[in-house]
Amino acid sequence: MTVKALALNGTLKSSNSSEKSSRGKLLQLIAEEFKRHGVETETIRLADYDIKPGVTSDEGGGDAWPEIREKILNADLLVLGTPIWLGQPSSVCKRALERMDTFLEETDDEGRMVSYGKVAAVAVVGNEDGAHHVSAELFQALNDVGFTVPANAVAYRVGEAMGSTNFVDLKRTPKAVQAMISMLARNTAHLAGLLKRSQYPGEEG
Amino acid sequence: MTVKALALNGTLKSSNSSEKSSRGKLLQLIAEEFKRHGVETETIRLADYDIKPGVTSDEGGGDAWPEIREKILNADLLVLGTPIWLGQPSSVCKRALERMDTFLEETDDEGRMVSYGKVAAVAVVGNEDGAHHVSAELFQALNDVGFTVPANAVAYRVGEAMGSTNFVDLKRTPKAVQAMISMLARNTAHLAGLLKRSQYPGEEG
Amino acid sequence: MTVKALALNGTLKSSNSSEKSSRGKLLQLIAEEFKRHGVETETIRLADYDIKPGVTSDEGGGDAWPEIREKILNADLLVLGTPIWLGQPSSVCKRALERMDTFLEETDDEGRMVSYGKVAAVAVVGNEDGAHHVSAELFQALNDVGFTVPANAVAYRVGEAMGSTNFVDLKRTPKAVQAMISMLARNTAHLAGLLKRSQYPGEEG
Amino acid sequence: MTVKALALNGTLKSSNSSEKSSRGKLLQLIAEEFKRHGVETETIRLADYDIKPGVTSDEGGGDAWPEIREKILNADLLVLGTPIWLGQPSSVCKRALERMDTFLEETDDEGRMVSYGKVAAVAVVGNEDGAHHVSAELFQALNDVGFTVPANAVAYRVGEAMGSTNFVDLKRTPKAVQAMISMLARNTAHLAGLLKRSQYPGEEG
Repeated sequence: MTVKALALNGTLKSSNSSEKSSRGKLLQLIAEEFKRHGVETETIRLADYDIKPGVTSDEGGGDAWPEIREKILNADLLVLGTPIWLGQPSSVCKRALERMDTFLEETDDEGRMVSYGKVAAVAVVGNEDGAHHVSAELFQALNDVGFTVPANAVAYRVGEAMGSTNFVDLKRTPKAVQAMISMLARNTAHLAGLLKRSQYPGEEG
Repeated sequence: MTVKALALNGTLKSSNSSEKSSRGKLLQLIAEEFKRHGVETETIRLADYDIKPGVTSDEGGGDAWPEIREKILNADLLVLGTPIWLGQPSSVCKRALERMDTFLEETDDEGRMVSYGKVAAVAVVGNEDGAHHVSAELFQALNDVGFTVPANAVAYRVGEAMGSTNFVDLKRTPKAVQAMISMLARNTAHLAGLLKRSQYPGEEG
Repeated sequence: MTVKALALNGTLKSSNSSEKSSRGKLLQLIAEEFKRHGVETETIRLADYDIKPGVTSDEGGGDAWPEIREKILNADLLVLGTPIWLGQPSSVCKRALERMDTFLEETDDEGRMVSYGKVAAVAVVGNEDGAHHVSAELFQALNDVGFTVPANAVAYRVGEAMGSTNFVDLKRTPKAVQAMISMLARNTAHLAGLLKRSQYPGEEG
Repeated sequence: MTVKALALNGTLKSSNSSEKSSRGKLLQLIAEEFKRHGVETETIRLADYDIKPGVTSDEGGGDAWPEIREKILNADLLVLGTPIWLGQPSSVCKRALERMDTFLEETDDEGRMVSYGKVAAVAVVGNEDGAHHVSAELFQALNDVGFTVPANAVAYRVGEAMGSTNFVDLKRTPKAVQAMISMLARNTAHLAGLLKRSQYPGEEG
């Protein structure tokens, strides 16, 4: 039983940008670690898609969300990656969360959202300060829309106060960051497997 | 000396939408109150503009931000309005904040950001829970990019836990909400006037 | 295999107070629902204990934390209850979280914190606004110190903006609140059972 | 007209502790900078006082809050300093904020809280990550209870992700931190002076 992961990169820059994404680097490190636990990862960059503002599953007019939503529902685990701007998650990341708001009403006969049984983890990269708050907002929003959050479900990198070094430009991954990545992958893969074999019970008729 | 206000409506819906905006209603009530204090208000709906993701003043390709940025710089006070989704500000509102990140580097010879001397207030409308956190995030982000926050600078309306009534559908404005609007307008107008007459000092040469 | 729950009530008032605690009422409703799932609950009121400020497991001088810490480690699941003040969790609740900071260094030979395999849920009661943010802060802090967060792991009650009605004074539990309690109990009990039978793997030698 | 500042240090450690406080160091640097602007600062360490939990102005039984409350009301500006634990403000700092909740009801004949006209700034020191969120929570809570927040009203120091170096042990103050301190002092002193000369207007009879 293979566990499938979807990683969403909430960077503000599309793939056409000449700049490399620090989020992309962190998500790649996580995907490599997942492989060791038998988890296959597909990564997509949200800024490459035209995701309309709204809180329904399809806002029409070429809305790219239905395609991404389908990928989320086909995966067993979701990794949501985001940069930090002003100490907070990116608008691109927030847009994706908003679009998941509709899971609240997409329930089966026993009251379970379409996301039930899926686990979520968070990857945050900034030049400085903000990772704990970003993970707080993401954990809460993802939990509200039905995801389960494994122990130590965040990997992050930030520099010193007012720092300006990009993660993608560091020569080597700091040891503390690598330790978080390993822990995240190990715990997330374990819990996704458990829940895949044993889904949450529904409401009693 | 007239004080000029700009109100940004961060609702997810554009004006073309058939749905009325609860944020729009709250911003209108605030604008009416401002008028009593001699403050002229221009209101714009962010979802009507193609604001590109990014953290520079002009992301090119038809980016609508330069036009909005100009309006912000011409105003003495800013009211940032947003709905609540999953207990948090909207992605549309966040996009605008991200674009103001560049103020951090847009300083005069004495180290003052282009936003110095401007005051900011916050208007939040949701069906339920989230206004305090939304104002916390907005106050911090706006303060980081140079705005001053007057006493009691938030007006909000939320319903009971899991409530679903829209503010725009209420027959009358709740007394507590009206009191917040009056206080916000009074304090914001006062402080904007003070700072317009007496700008923050710059760094000493 | 019985699942044991510990509920911590973070109200500001001790049991000696003549006032009834709205948090106490919500925690009692959750405990009753747990019983239906075979979960036994012990509830303690943090304000009845002299918990010293600090971030070690025993701050000495009559510190009550070691006793509470022992109860946490003996339980399979933790419910952290708190009132909302100024849109945020109580100082009493925060004190308990701070004291769990030390779990970060209390790991077994394979790098797993003493809290690994335990699940956590959150119960929030306020007169108005703040539950989402409170759950965000609690989820993040509890996750950082090793707890796992089941799907929809929060039950809350808040009233309208600037509302002043206490939960404990409501004649009946609102339907939406009861639905959250049922969901919280069902999901939490399920996941606690799964993890009790199948602990997270440790680091490889 | 001298501006008076009160600095509250929300560290978990009392003055009896042998450990030096990094918060204390930052507050001292701010006080020195204030002096250049003619502002006199009194600093108190909250952990040295027996501040009871509660939300009234005097909880009795030897409650130390009335004494601190008096100092706040006699000052023109408040600097609230706190460490970061789990990415959040300390329980000691939160306790002080909770006790200010009562300002909401302590208004003059024209509806102005006792805190009106006072400005507030925030000083945050942690080994790593969390300063933006801490300032967000403090700005919002202080604003709710009537304080005005000047432009760039936060000075903070944090290290790299998972860092463990204390600010008090750094050989020299980082340039970026010193710049924040200067800006905070300059802006806060200016705005406190303006509001001291020109208080917010009250409700019209």
